[in-house]
Amino acid sequence: MADGRPQPDCLFCKIVAGEIPATVVRETETTVAFKDINPQAPVHDLVVPRAHYRNAVELAANAPELAAALLVEAAAVAEAEGVADGGYRVVFNTDAHAGQTVFHVHAHVLGGDFLSTFGS
Amino acid sequence: MADGRPQPDCLFCKIVAGEIPATVVRETETTVAFKDINPQAPVHDLVVPRAHYRNAVELAANAPELAAALLVEAAAVAEAEGVADGGYRVVFNTDAHAGQTVFHVHAHVLGGDFLSTFGS
Repeated sequence: MADGRPQPDCLFCKIVAGEIPATVVRETETTVAFKDINPQAPVHDLVVPRAHYRNAVELAANAPELAAALLVEAAAVAEAEGVADGGYRVVFNTDAHAGQTVFHVHAHVLGGDFLSTFGS
Repeated sequence: MADGRPQPDCLFCKIVAGEIPATVVRETETTVAFKDINPQAPVHDLVVPRAHYRNAVELAANAPELAAALLVEAAAVAEAEGVADGGYRVVFNTDAHAGQTVFHVHAHVLGGDFLSTFGS
């Protein structure tokens, strides 16, 4: 059972710990939000829990309150970035084929002028 | 404060109640998953809570356990559809500009052979 402990080789654990720099947008007691380094929309931030869970289902199954906090924080990030009123998308990719590249769960928050399709 | 009660003019409340047909993939006590009628990927299902909440943040703020259950169920749907191992994407759109067309929170579950971009 996943316990949320930091993993030594995890990029996002290192960002959470301040060991690797990132452009932080917001922080809460349980989450950190920062700019995606390869943005796919005018606003493209990542929201991660400070605790390490591999993906959205591992997070939701082991720490449901934290999963909910992540969704609430995604909305706060959209608000802080000025895209809450215009609309935004929250995306969780699970496994490499779906584009997950770091295996520390992260919500993509995408907003601004982007296509309203799913990339199909 | 949103209380999750069914809304009379809500399409997804009607699907949950069985008043409007849908191709149901899975059901739990708290959620219903069904095929998107306009699929954007080989697998494209929607997972909705039976309770009515307008969007992901309203759900997460008012019913955190249910928000987590929705993420867990999204993974179960991916499994049932045979795309869990290959990878899948879970998307919440918030407000019309982001492509939300029905204002009853729904997680899009996209899997199979689709582009790994965000539509940008």
